[in-house]
Amino acid sequence: MSLAAEVTETFEQLRETVAALHGELTRYELVIWTAGNISARVPGQDLMVIKPSGVAYDDLSAATMVVTDLHGNLVQGELAPSSDTAAHAYVYRHMPEVGGVVHTHSTYATAWAARGEPIPCVLTMIADEFGGEIPVGPFALIGDDSIGRGIVETLKWSRSPAVLMRNHGPFTIGRTARDAVKAAVMVEDVARTVHKSYQLGTPEPLSEQDVDRLYARYQNVYGQQGEK
Amino acid sequence: MSLAAEVTETFEQLRETVAALHGELTRYELVIWTAGNISARVPGQDLMVIKPSGVAYDDLSAATMVVTDLHGNLVQGELAPSSDTAAHAYVYRHMPEVGGVVHTHSTYATAWAARGEPIPCVLTMIADEFGGEIPVGPFALIGDDSIGRGIVETLKWSRSPAVLMRNHGPFTIGRTARDAVKAAVMVEDVARTVHKSYQLGTPEPLSEQDVDRLYARYQNVYGQQGEK
Amino acid sequence: MSLAAEVTETFEQLRETVAALHGELTRYELVIWTAGNISARVPGQDLMVIKPSGVAYDDLSAATMVVTDLHGNLVQGELAPSSDTAAHAYVYRHMPEVGGVVHTHSTYATAWAARGEPIPCVLTMIADEFGGEIPVGPFALIGDDSIGRGIVETLKWSRSPAVLMRNHGPFTIGRTARDAVKAAVMVEDVARTVHKSYQLGTPEPLSEQDVDRLYARYQNVYGQQGEK
Amino acid sequence: MSLAAEVTETFEQLRETVAALHGELTRYELVIWTAGNISARVPGQDLMVIKPSGVAYDDLSAATMVVTDLHGNLVQGELAPSSDTAAHAYVYRHMPEVGGVVHTHSTYATAWAARGEPIPCVLTMIADEFGGEIPVGPFALIGDDSIGRGIVETLKWSRSPAVLMRNHGPFTIGRTARDAVKAAVMVEDVARTVHKSYQLGTPEPLSEQDVDRLYARYQNVYGQQGEK
Repeated sequence: MSLAAEVTETFEQLRETVAALHGELTRYELVIWTAGNISARVPGQDLMVIKPSGVAYDDLSAATMVVTDLHGNLVQGELAPSSDTAAHAYVYRHMPEVGGVVHTHSTYATAWAARGEPIPCVLTMIADEFGGEIPVGPFALIGDDSIGRGIVETLKWSRSPAVLMRNHGPFTIGRTARDAVKAAVMVEDVARTVHKSYQLGTPEPLSEQDVDRLYARYQNVYGQQGEK
Repeated sequence: MSLAAEVTETFEQLRETVAALHGELTRYELVIWTAGNISARVPGQDLMVIKPSGVAYDDLSAATMVVTDLHGNLVQGELAPSSDTAAHAYVYRHMPEVGGVVHTHSTYATAWAARGEPIPCVLTMIADEFGGEIPVGPFALIGDDSIGRGIVETLKWSRSPAVLMRNHGPFTIGRTARDAVKAAVMVEDVARTVHKSYQLGTPEPLSEQDVDRLYARYQNVYGQQGEK
Repeated sequence: MSLAAEVTETFEQLRETVAALHGELTRYELVIWTAGNISARVPGQDLMVIKPSGVAYDDLSAATMVVTDLHGNLVQGELAPSSDTAAHAYVYRHMPEVGGVVHTHSTYATAWAARGEPIPCVLTMIADEFGGEIPVGPFALIGDDSIGRGIVETLKWSRSPAVLMRNHGPFTIGRTARDAVKAAVMVEDVARTVHKSYQLGTPEPLSEQDVDRLYARYQNVYGQQGEK
Repeated sequence: MSLAAEVTETFEQLRETVAALHGELTRYELVIWTAGNISARVPGQDLMVIKPSGVAYDDLSAATMVVTDLHGNLVQGELAPSSDTAAHAYVYRHMPEVGGVVHTHSTYATAWAARGEPIPCVLTMIADEFGGEIPVGPFALIGDDSIGRGIVETLKWSRSPAVLMRNHGPFTIGRTARDAVKAAVMVEDVARTVHKSYQLGTPEPLSEQDVDRLYARYQNVYGQQGEK
């Protein structure tokens, strides 16, 4: 408990940020009821801030966010952590560059996941943000490290910050929780657009060379200097 | 009338709850105009609180909710009860464990209902909440017990809290009205996702064993202890 | 001008009503930008209240509504009446029981209209409100009585309050403007649901007998006594 | 810097207008996150007001808008201009009648763009606003004048104010920024409606003569006199 007391002040800002970011999931209609969750690594510590389990989006606030270690054990907070905590924790343990993880069941991304089909890179926007097709991860049951391992094994060798977990839904990662939320918003947007495009024909994929150019430019030039 | 006077205080909270839950139907765009309705059993009494007929969602409040007995006779309230009251009442009479009933014409669930096709269990989220495919109920005309009987006969032997009434739309049940609303929100969400998935191919159903494991875990572990 | 002065007070309430009803068109996303329009017959007079042309929905108010006679000539108001005024006026001249007319380009209803296909009666909700399939009207150019005549000739012998004007969009009528708006909301809703249902198979139409029973009941029993 | 000081007052109104118009892009759900951008030519000067790069829609205001010359060089403002500035600038340099440019990745318009298919003129609304089918522009990489040139070469000889840039998304132009935003809203609306219509069959295109009549009327008669 003394650990929890010490970190309270340090964590306050991060709890605020993670709570507020959940508002982007509802704004873009990526989640319903209490489904979906966002976490952020606590910089420099083996801890993370994550959504509590089964709490309505209207009731989320900095105060209701919980802190766990990177094995999912509760460190701070009065509510049980998200039932997907083990998957988030596994990602943080195995991908040190990741500072944020997001999980949703957003409609179109989950529809691709249910078929086990990657989203092909047929839009400049996909090349920009995902650097190629958006990959599918294995089918994995909740309850142990299977989901986390599936995410890491799929994303470790990909430029994509999003993986479509088979018959389940998308997980996204980012340098920060905000970046991971952006990827969650964008994976649903491109999943929807590409779905619509295939309904009436076959869009042509971009060439690998064009994908590389677009990805390099977007990652290095887009946005304001010094932020992303 | 003396009965109505007696129960006023006891019912006030339940009327408030049922009125507020209708806001979830509009939030998730499950209903238009005055269509759709929610009821709650009055615990320990052969009574239920239900939406009045043909009243706009903006005009619903605790005060406009009506109370009927479990044969649909008006006990309290100044407005006529929902035209679906007989179906709700039949469910409460024949399924004593049910505390809430919801009916909508939500787009995707109704589209499956119009074809008379169950929604296959191709997503972990369906296994979690519905414990298998979401079943279709018979075509039944409004006006007698046909709809209620169709709901009960379909759901009595199923783990699913939702039934797709043929050429009509979904009815959902729950331990509480809130649980039934959650099922109404989720049946539309998975009806939409599975629809989208089938549009471009054929998603693979989960194995029976995986469905059982997921269902058992979700019903027992998910959410905060002591609530659901 | 003295006529305009006389009717000001009488019309104030109707202008308020028609202005407010336009909010239902945006709420249900039936219109974009300045497209779409609602009118109401002035009871007992050969006049109607209608939306001005090309005015944004945020800028509509009782004060901006205009009054015309039943040939579309401006009687009261400072703005030009809707470019669809001639069609509304024709309907009022030829269907004395009609008190309200609505026109939108709502997505799904217009998609059926572009193919020139009626919406089949495969849902109890369609039987309830439309009394059978929702018919298609002829292709007609704006600028004379063609559109109005197409509406009247299609609806005069139908129970449906909605007609899908070919390559154009839906027009709906009602005893009041509110009823016509309800029909506009419902035609889009069922156009969408039936569209979705056909995408993955073929829903079975209701029998004529069932349609008749449902229609009779809904028109006579539904809602609160004394209103509709 | 003295130039920037001089123009501040003159530009204030235009910055306000351009900032506010971005609210229409979110209202009609044409954009997500920071994607999409609007610019306006500064009347009588070789300058334009444009959205800054990578800034969230909630954070846009008159003060955050930037001013560049018609080669994209920053003249006023503290943030880097939109990454699409070169395309906007090229359009203003080569189409003197254009006062506003809009770019989005709106879902349905982009789905047609990904297939490289023009949107056929099967609705009176398309004839009204676009004067015929909505054309496809070439695939072009960001970084030089390719996108701008593709827009101009496609639209210079067309009545359509919208072009679907291949594998990328729609660009629209107008006499004013507001007109270009209207075209962006309408291109998505008709892209969606025509998409839905083709999903269940084949809508019949309007005749060339009817398209011409509708276009002429809408451009000259619709709306209030003296504005558009």
